[in-house]
Amino acid sequence: MKSHTEYLTFNLPARMAFQNITQYCEEAVRKSGIKEGLLLCNAMHITASVFINDDEAGLHADYKEWLEQLAPHAPIDRYRHNRTGEDNGDAHLKRQVMGREVVVAVTDGKLDFGPWEQIFYGEFDGRREKRVLVKVIGE
Amino acid sequence: MKSHTEYLTFNLPARMAFQNITQYCEEAVRKSGIKEGLLLCNAMHITASVFINDDEAGLHADYKEWLEQLAPHAPIDRYRHNRTGEDNGDAHLKRQVMGREVVVAVTDGKLDFGPWEQIFYGEFDGRREKRVLVKVIGE
Amino acid sequence: MKSHTEYLTFNLPARMAFQNITQYCEEAVRKSGIKEGLLLCNAMHITASVFINDDEAGLHADYKEWLEQLAPHAPIDRYRHNRTGEDNGDAHLKRQVMGREVVVAVTDGKLDFGPWEQIFYGEFDGRREKRVLVKVIGE
Repeated sequence: MKSHTEYLTFNLPARMAFQNITQYCEEAVRKSGIKEGLLLCNAMHITASVFINDDEAGLHADYKEWLEQLAPHAPIDRYRHNRTGEDNGDAHLKRQVMGREVVVAVTDGKLDFGPWEQIFYGEFDGRREKRVLVKVIGE
Repeated sequence: MKSHTEYLTFNLPARMAFQNITQYCEEAVRKSGIKEGLLLCNAMHITASVFINDDEAGLHADYKEWLEQLAPHAPIDRYRHNRTGEDNGDAHLKRQVMGREVVVAVTDGKLDFGPWEQIFYGEFDGRREKRVLVKVIGE
Repeated sequence: MKSHTEYLTFNLPARMAFQNITQYCEEAVRKSGIKEGLLLCNAMHITASVFINDDEAGLHADYKEWLEQLAPHAPIDRYRHNRTGEDNGDAHLKRQVMGREVVVAVTDGKLDFGPWEQIFYGEFDGRREKRVLVKVIGE
Protein backbone atom coordinates (compact mmCIF):
# COMPACT_ATOMS: atom_id res chain seq x y z
CA MET A 1 0.00 0.00 0.00
CA LYS A 2 1.23 3.49 -0.91
CA SER A 3 0.29 6.76 0.77
CA HIS A 4 0.84 10.43 0.05
CA THR A 5 0.09 13.38 2.37
CA GLU A 6 -0.09 17.11 1.64
CA TYR A 7 -1.03 20.19 3.62
CA LEU A 8 -2.58 23.14 1.79
CA THR A 9 -2.81 26.63 3.30
CA PHE A 10 -5.58 29.12 2.52
CA ASN A 11 -6.26 32.66 3.65
CA LEU A 12 -9.66 33.71 2.31
CA PRO A 13 -10.42 37.45 2.36
CA ALA A 14 -13.95 37.27 3.87
CA ARG A 15 -15.53 35.81 6.98
CA MET A 16 -17.52 33.34 4.81
CA ALA A 17 -16.15 32.21 1.42
CA PHE A 18 -15.74 29.15 -0.79
CA GLN A 19 -12.73 28.21 -2.92
CA ASN A 20 -12.51 25.44 -5.51
CA ILE A 21 -9.58 23.20 -4.49
CA THR A 22 -10.16 20.33 -6.93
CA GLN A 23 -6.91 20.96 -8.80
CA TYR A 24 -4.84 20.55 -5.63
CA CYS A 25 -6.49 17.20 -4.94
CA GLU A 26 -5.97 16.05 -8.53
CA GLU A 27 -2.31 16.99 -8.22
CA ALA A 28 -1.97 15.04 -4.96
CA VAL A 29 -3.34 11.94 -6.72
CA ARG A 30 -0.89 12.42 -9.59
CA LYS A 31 2.08 12.83 -7.24
CA SER A 32 1.02 9.78 -5.20
CA GLY A 33 1.29 7.46 -8.20
CA ILE A 34 -1.78 5.65 -6.79
CA LYS A 35 -4.10 4.07 -9.37
CA GLU A 36 -6.78 2.52 -7.11
CA GLY A 37 -7.58 3.84 -3.65
CA LEU A 38 -9.21 6.59 -1.62
CA LEU A 39 -8.49 10.29 -1.20
CA LEU A 40 -9.35 12.04 2.08
CA CYS A 41 -9.54 15.84 2.07
CA ASN A 42 -10.44 17.60 5.34
CA ALA A 43 -10.36 20.99 6.97
CA MET A 44 -7.83 20.96 9.84
CA HIS A 45 -9.70 23.84 11.54
CA ILE A 46 -13.06 23.49 13.22
CA THR A 47 -14.68 26.61 11.73
CA ALA A 48 -14.12 25.47 8.13
CA SER A 49 -15.43 22.74 5.82
CA VAL A 50 -14.43 20.69 2.84
CA PHE A 51 -17.42 19.71 0.70
CA ILE A 52 -18.31 18.65 -2.82
CA ASN A 53 -20.86 20.49 -4.92
CA ASP A 54 -21.27 22.67 -8.01
CA ASP A 55 -18.92 25.49 -9.05
CA GLU A 56 -21.71 28.00 -9.66
CA ALA A 57 -21.62 31.50 -8.16
CA GLY A 58 -25.41 31.75 -7.68
CA LEU A 59 -25.43 28.52 -5.68
CA HIS A 60 -22.59 29.73 -3.49
CA ALA A 61 -24.54 32.93 -2.75
CA ASP A 62 -27.54 30.72 -1.88
CA TYR A 63 -25.40 28.66 0.50
CA LYS A 64 -24.16 31.77 2.27
CA GLU A 65 -27.66 33.22 2.71
CA TRP A 66 -29.07 29.87 3.88
CA LEU A 67 -26.28 29.20 6.37
CA GLU A 68 -26.63 32.73 7.74
CA GLN A 69 -30.34 32.00 8.35
CA LEU A 70 -29.64 28.63 9.98
CA ALA A 71 -26.84 30.00 12.23
CA PRO A 72 -26.66 33.83 12.23
CA HIS A 73 -23.34 35.46 13.04
CA ALA A 74 -24.91 38.35 15.00
CA PRO A 75 -25.72 39.24 17.67
CA ILE A 76 -22.56 37.49 18.81
CA ASP A 77 -23.80 37.19 22.41
CA ARG A 78 -26.41 34.67 21.26
CA TYR A 79 -23.66 32.00 21.46
CA ARG A 80 -22.22 30.88 24.79
CA HIS A 81 -19.03 29.95 22.93
CA ASN A 82 -18.42 33.67 22.34
CA ARG A 83 -18.16 34.29 26.09
CA THR A 84 -14.66 32.80 25.76
CA GLY A 85 -13.71 35.99 23.86
CA GLU A 86 -14.35 34.48 20.40
CA ASP A 87 -16.88 35.83 17.89
CA ASN A 88 -17.07 32.67 15.75
CA GLY A 89 -19.75 30.60 17.52
CA ASP A 90 -21.82 30.65 14.31
CA ALA A 91 -18.89 29.30 12.29
CA HIS A 92 -18.75 26.10 14.39
CA LEU A 93 -22.44 25.49 13.57
CA LYS A 94 -22.21 26.32 9.86
CA ARG A 95 -19.27 23.94 9.50
CA GLN A 96 -21.38 21.03 10.83
CA VAL A 97 -24.02 21.60 8.13
CA MET A 98 -21.44 21.65 5.33
CA GLY A 99 -19.21 18.90 6.78
CA ARG A 100 -15.53 18.52 7.73
CA GLU A 101 -14.27 16.19 5.04
CA VAL A 102 -14.82 14.34 1.79
CA VAL A 103 -13.66 10.87 0.82
CA VAL A 104 -13.29 10.39 -2.94
CA ALA A 105 -12.60 7.23 -4.92
CA VAL A 106 -9.39 7.14 -6.96
CA THR A 107 -9.90 4.92 -10.02
CA ASP A 108 -7.39 4.38 -12.80
CA GLY A 109 -5.19 7.14 -11.35
CA LYS A 110 -7.93 9.81 -11.27
CA LEU A 111 -10.56 11.26 -8.93
CA ASP A 112 -13.64 9.20 -9.82
CA PHE A 113 -16.16 12.02 -10.13
CA GLY A 114 -19.63 12.50 -11.53
CA PRO A 115 -20.11 15.21 -14.17
CA TRP A 116 -20.38 18.24 -11.85
CA GLU A 117 -18.52 17.22 -8.71
CA GLN A 118 -15.91 19.75 -7.53
CA ILE A 119 -14.17 19.96 -4.14
CA PHE A 120 -14.49 23.21 -2.16
CA TYR A 121 -12.82 24.67 0.86
CA GLY A 122 -15.56 26.38 2.88
CA GLU A 123 -14.48 29.14 5.24
CA PHE A 124 -16.77 30.46 8.01
CA ASP A 125 -14.23 32.46 10.05
CA GLY A 126 -11.75 33.69 7.49
CA ARG A 127 -9.19 36.43 7.01
CA ARG A 128 -6.44 34.27 8.49
CA GLU A 129 -4.33 31.29 7.44
CA LYS A 130 -5.86 27.84 7.80
CA ARG A 131 -4.80 24.40 6.64
CA VAL A 132 -6.41 21.57 4.69
CA LEU A 133 -5.10 18.00 4.71
CA VAL A 134 -5.06 15.78 1.61
CA LYS A 135 -4.16 12.12 2.00
CA VAL A 136 -4.26 9.43 -0.68
CA ILE A 137 -3.90 5.72 0.12
CA GLY A 138 -3.99 2.77 -2.25
CA GLU A 139 -1.86 1.08 -4.85
CA MET B 1 -4.29 -4.33 -1.33
CA LYS B 2 -7.36 -5.27 -3.37
CA SER B 3 -10.00 -2.89 -4.71
CA HIS B 4 -13.38 -3.23 -6.38
CA THR B 5 -15.45 -0.47 -8.02
CA GLU B 6 -19.09 -0.45 -9.11
CA TYR B 7 -21.46 2.13 -10.53
CA LEU B 8 -25.17 1.86 -9.73
CA THR B 9 -27.86 3.74 -11.67
CA PHE B 10 -31.14 4.90 -10.17
CA ASN B 11 -34.14 6.71 -11.61
CA LEU B 12 -36.52 7.55 -8.76
CA PRO B 13 -40.07 8.53 -9.74
CA ALA B 14 -40.41 11.64 -7.51
CA ARG B 15 -38.51 14.87 -6.98
CA MET B 16 -37.61 13.75 -3.43
CA ALA B 17 -37.35 10.03 -2.58
CA PHE B 18 -35.22 7.52 -0.66
CA GLN B 19 -34.21 4.01 -1.74
CA ASN B 20 -32.54 1.34 0.37
CA ILE B 21 -29.36 0.31 -1.47
CA THR B 22 -27.76 -1.82 1.25
CA GLN B 23 -28.03 -5.03 -0.78
CA TYR B 24 -25.99 -3.52 -3.64
CA CYS B 25 -23.23 -2.55 -1.21
CA GLU B 26 -23.25 -6.00 0.40
CA GLU B 27 -22.93 -7.55 -3.04
CA ALA B 28 -19.99 -5.28 -3.91
CA VAL B 29 -18.21 -6.47 -0.74
CA ARG B 30 -18.90 -10.10 -1.66
CA LYS B 31 -17.61 -9.65 -5.22
CA SER B 32 -14.49 -7.82 -3.98
CA GLY B 33 -13.34 -10.80 -1.91
CA ILE B 34 -12.15 -8.26 0.68
CA LYS B 35 -12.28 -9.41 4.31
CA GLU B 36 -10.90 -6.33 6.12
CA GLY B 37 -11.15 -2.82 4.69
CA LEU B 38 -13.39 0.15 3.96
CA LEU B 39 -16.37 0.65 1.65
CA LEU B 40 -17.07 4.09 0.18
CA CYS B 41 -20.54 4.73 -1.25
CA ASN B 42 -21.28 8.19 -2.69
CA ALA B 43 -23.75 10.00 -4.89
CA MET B 44 -22.03 11.06 -8.14
CA HIS B 45 -24.56 13.86 -8.59
CA ILE B 46 -24.67 17.01 -6.48
CA THR B 47 -28.41 17.06 -5.86
CA ALA B 48 -28.45 13.60 -4.27
CA SER B 49 -27.16 11.97 -1.07
CA VAL B 50 -26.04 8.65 0.28
CA PHE B 51 -26.75 8.30 4.00
CA ILE B 52 -27.23 5.67 6.70
CA ASN B 53 -30.33 5.54 8.85
CA ASP B 54 -33.44 3.48 9.60
CA ASP B 55 -35.63 1.78 6.98
CA GLU B 56 -38.90 3.10 8.41
CA ALA B 57 -41.50 4.81 6.23
CA GLY B 58 -42.66 7.25 8.93
CA LEU B 59 -39.10 8.46 9.45
CA HIS B 60 -38.64 8.96 5.72
CA ALA B 61 -41.82 11.07 5.62
CA ASP B 62 -40.43 13.08 8.56
CA TYR B 63 -37.14 13.64 6.70
CA LYS B 64 -38.99 14.92 3.63
CA GLU B 65 -41.14 17.34 5.61
CA TRP B 66 -38.16 18.59 7.65
CA LEU B 67 -35.91 19.09 4.62
CA GLU B 68 -38.72 20.93 2.84
CA GLN B 69 -38.93 23.31 5.81
CA LEU B 70 -35.16 23.81 5.97
CA ALA B 71 -34.81 24.41 2.21
CA PRO B 72 -38.18 24.86 0.45
CA HIS B 73 -38.43 24.01 -3.25
CA ALA B 74 -40.82 26.91 -4.04
CA PRO B 75 -40.94 29.69 -4.92
CA ILE B 76 -38.08 28.71 -7.20
CA ASP B 77 -36.97 32.34 -7.65
CA ARG B 78 -35.83 32.41 -4.02
CA TYR B 79 -32.59 30.72 -5.17
CA ARG B 80 -30.04 32.59 -7.29
CA HIS B 81 -28.92 29.21 -8.64
CA ASN B 82 -32.26 28.93 -10.43
CA ARG B 83 -31.48 32.01 -12.55
CA THR B 84 -29.25 29.66 -14.55
CA GLY B 85 -32.47 28.02 -15.82
CA GLU B 86 -32.46 25.26 -13.17
CA ASP B 87 -35.25 24.70 -10.63
CA ASN B 88 -33.20 22.57 -8.24
CA GLY B 89 -31.53 25.16 -5.98
CA ASP B 90 -33.24 23.59 -2.96
CA ALA B 91 -31.87 20.15 -3.87
CA HIS B 92 -28.26 21.37 -3.54
CA LEU B 93 -29.05 22.56 0.00
CA LYS B 94 -30.97 19.45 1.07
CA ARG B 95 -28.11 17.26 -0.11
CA GLN B 96 -25.67 19.06 2.22
CA VAL B 97 -27.85 18.29 5.26
CA MET B 98 -28.10 14.59 4.40
CA GLY B 99 -24.50 14.21 3.13
CA ARG B 100 -22.77 13.02 -0.04
CA GLU B 101 -21.22 9.76 1.09
CA VAL B 102 -20.82 7.07 3.70
CA VAL B 103 -17.70 5.15 4.66
CA VAL B 104 -18.44 1.74 6.19
CA ALA B 105 -16.06 -0.74 7.84
CA VAL B 106 -15.74 -4.16 6.19
CA THR B 107 -14.92 -6.76 8.87
CA ASP B 108 -14.66 -10.51 8.28
CA GLY B 109 -16.02 -10.04 4.75
CA LYS B 110 -19.16 -8.14 5.76
CA LEU B 111 -20.43 -4.59 6.25
CA ASP B 112 -19.77 -4.00 9.96
CA PHE B 113 -23.14 -2.52 10.90
CA GLY B 114 -25.06 -1.77 14.08
CA PRO B 115 -28.51 -3.34 14.48
CA TRP B 116 -30.52 -0.84 12.41
CA GLU B 117 -28.01 0.66 9.99
CA GLN B 118 -29.12 0.63 6.35
CA ILE B 119 -27.66 2.58 3.40
CA PHE B 120 -29.98 4.87 1.44
CA TYR B 121 -29.80 6.72 -1.82
CA GLY B 122 -31.44 10.11 -1.23
CA GLU B 123 -32.83 11.90 -4.25
CA PHE B 124 -33.74 15.61 -4.19
CA ASP B 125 -34.11 16.26 -7.93
CA GLY B 126 -35.36 12.98 -9.32
CA ARG B 127 -37.23 11.63 -12.32
CA ARG B 128 -34.00 11.10 -14.23
CA GLU B 129 -31.08 8.66 -14.20
CA LYS B 130 -28.32 9.29 -11.71
CA ARG B 131 -25.31 7.27 -10.61
CA VAL B 132 -23.90 6.07 -7.29
CA LEU B 133 -20.31 4.88 -6.84
CA VAL B 134 -19.36 1.96 -4.60
CA LYS B 135 -15.68 1.29 -3.95
CA VAL B 136 -14.19 -1.30 -1.58
CA ILE B 137 -10.51 -1.34 -0.66
CA GLY B 138 -8.69 -3.71 1.68
CA GLU B 139 -7.42 -7.25 1.85
CA MET C 1 -2.09 -3.79 4.50
CA LYS C 2 -2.85 -4.00 8.23
CA SER C 3 -6.18 -3.39 9.91
CA HIS C 4 -7.41 -3.04 13.47
CA THR C 5 -11.03 -2.92 14.68
CA GLU C 6 -12.47 -1.92 18.05
CA TYR C 7 -15.96 -1.47 19.46
CA LEU C 8 -16.52 1.12 22.19
CA THR C 9 -19.62 1.19 24.38
CA PHE C 10 -21.12 4.36 25.87
CA ASN C 11 -24.10 5.00 28.12
CA LEU C 12 -24.57 8.75 28.42
CA PRO C 13 -26.82 9.95 31.27
CA ALA C 14 -28.96 12.45 29.28
CA ARG C 15 -31.12 12.35 26.18
CA MET C 16 -28.65 14.69 24.39
CA ALA C 17 -24.97 14.72 25.39
CA PHE C 18 -21.45 14.83 23.91
CA GLN C 19 -18.38 12.90 25.05
CA ASN C 20 -14.79 13.40 23.93
CA ILE C 21 -13.56 10.02 22.61
CA THR C 22 -10.27 11.16 21.07
CA GLN C 23 -8.16 9.13 23.51
CA TYR C 24 -9.88 5.87 22.49
CA CYS C 25 -9.14 6.59 18.82
CA GLU C 26 -5.51 7.46 19.60
CA GLU C 27 -5.18 4.19 21.47
CA ALA C 28 -6.66 2.23 18.55
CA VAL C 29 -4.02 3.76 16.26
CA ARG C 30 -1.27 2.83 18.74
CA LYS C 31 -2.50 -0.76 19.06
CA SER C 32 -2.83 -1.10 15.27
CA GLY C 33 0.88 -0.42 14.71
CA ILE C 34 -0.19 1.49 11.58
CA LYS C 35 2.03 4.42 10.59
CA GLU C 36 0.28 5.65 7.40
CA GLY C 37 -3.40 5.10 6.74
CA LEU C 38 -6.97 6.10 7.60
CA LEU C 39 -9.05 5.81 10.76
CA LEU C 40 -12.84 5.46 10.52
CA CYS C 41 -14.90 6.18 13.63
CA ASN C 42 -18.69 5.87 13.38
CA ALA C 43 -21.76 5.58 15.55
CA MET C 44 -23.30 2.12 15.13
CA HIS C 45 -26.71 3.48 16.18
CA ILE C 46 -28.86 5.74 14.03
CA THR C 47 -29.78 8.26 16.72
CA ALA C 48 -26.15 9.11 17.51
CA SER C 49 -23.24 10.87 15.79
CA VAL C 50 -19.48 10.93 15.71
CA PHE C 51 -18.12 14.37 14.81
CA ILE C 52 -15.01 16.51 15.13
CA ASN C 53 -15.05 19.93 16.73
CA ASP C 54 -13.86 21.90 19.75
CA ASP C 55 -13.85 20.63 23.36
CA GLU C 56 -15.50 23.74 24.79
CA ALA C 57 -18.52 23.55 27.09
CA GLY C 58 -20.14 26.76 25.81
CA LEU C 59 -20.02 25.49 22.23
CA HIS C 60 -21.59 22.20 23.27
CA ALA C 61 -24.43 24.10 24.96
CA ASP C 62 -24.83 26.10 21.72
CA TYR C 63 -25.01 22.89 19.68
CA LYS C 64 -27.73 21.48 21.94
CA GLU C 65 -29.85 24.63 21.78
CA TRP C 66 -29.42 24.94 18.00
CA LEU C 67 -30.23 21.29 17.31
CA GLU C 68 -33.31 21.54 19.53
CA GLN C 69 -34.49 24.49 17.42
CA LEU C 70 -33.79 22.69 14.14
CA ALA C 71 -35.49 19.44 15.24
CA PRO C 72 -37.46 19.83 18.50
CA HIS C 73 -38.02 16.74 20.64
CA ALA C 74 -41.57 17.74 21.67
CA PRO C 75 -44.39 17.47 20.99
CA ILE C 76 -43.46 13.92 20.11
CA ASP C 77 -46.53 13.47 17.89
CA ARG C 78 -45.04 15.92 15.38
CA TYR C 79 -42.98 13.00 14.00
CA ARG C 80 -44.62 10.15 12.10
CA HIS C 81 -41.73 7.94 13.20
CA ASN C 82 -43.05 8.18 16.77
CA ARG C 83 -46.30 6.45 15.76
CA THR C 84 -44.23 3.24 15.85
CA GLY C 85 -44.11 3.65 19.65
CA GLU C 86 -40.75 5.46 19.67
CA ASP C 87 -40.21 8.97 21.03
CA ASN C 88 -36.88 9.58 19.24
CA GLY C 89 -37.97 10.96 15.85
CA ASP C 90 -36.04 14.16 16.57
CA ALA C 91 -32.86 12.20 17.32
CA HIS C 92 -32.81 10.73 13.78
CA LEU C 93 -32.91 14.29 12.38
CA LYS C 94 -30.32 15.76 14.76
CA ARG C 95 -27.91 12.94 13.91
CA GLN C 96 -28.05 13.86 10.20
CA VAL C 97 -26.96 17.45 10.95
CA MET C 98 -24.00 16.32 13.07
CA GLY C 99 -23.06 13.31 10.90
CA ARG C 100 -22.55 9.57 11.40
CA GLU C 101 -18.81 9.22 11.03
CA VAL C 102 -15.40 10.82 10.71
CA VAL C 103 -12.45 9.68 8.63
CA VAL C 104 -9.10 10.87 9.98
CA ALA C 105 -5.64 10.62 8.44
CA VAL C 106 -3.03 8.58 10.31
CA THR C 107 0.43 10.01 9.61
CA ASP C 108 3.66 8.84 11.22
CA GLY C 109 1.68 6.68 13.65
CA LYS C 110 -0.60 9.47 14.92
CA LEU C 111 -3.99 11.06 14.22
CA ASP C 112 -3.08 13.89 11.84
CA PHE C 113 -5.05 16.68 13.49
CA GLY C 114 -5.20 20.45 13.34
CA PRO C 115 -4.67 22.39 16.59
CA TRP C 116 -8.20 22.08 18.01
CA GLU C 117 -9.63 18.94 16.43
CA GLN C 118 -11.14 16.49 18.92
CA ILE C 119 -13.46 13.53 18.21
CA PHE C 120 -16.84 13.45 19.95
CA TYR C 121 -19.55 10.89 20.42
CA GLY C 122 -22.86 12.75 20.07
CA GLU C 123 -25.89 11.19 21.72
CA PHE C 124 -29.45 12.26 20.85
CA ASP C 125 -31.41 9.43 22.50
CA GLY C 126 -29.30 8.45 25.47
CA ARG C 127 -29.64 6.74 28.83
CA ARG C 128 -28.86 3.34 27.30
CA GLU C 129 -25.83 1.48 25.98
CA LYS C 130 -24.75 2.20 22.45
CA ARG C 131 -21.71 1.25 20.42
CA VAL C 132 -19.12 3.09 18.35
CA LEU C 133 -16.85 1.41 15.80
CA VAL C 134 -13.20 2.36 15.29
CA LYS C 135 -11.31 0.86 12.36
CA VAL C 136 -7.78 1.69 11.24
CA ILE C 137 -6.36 0.49 7.92
CA GLY C 138 -2.92 1.15 6.46
CA GLU C 139 0.68 0.10 6.86
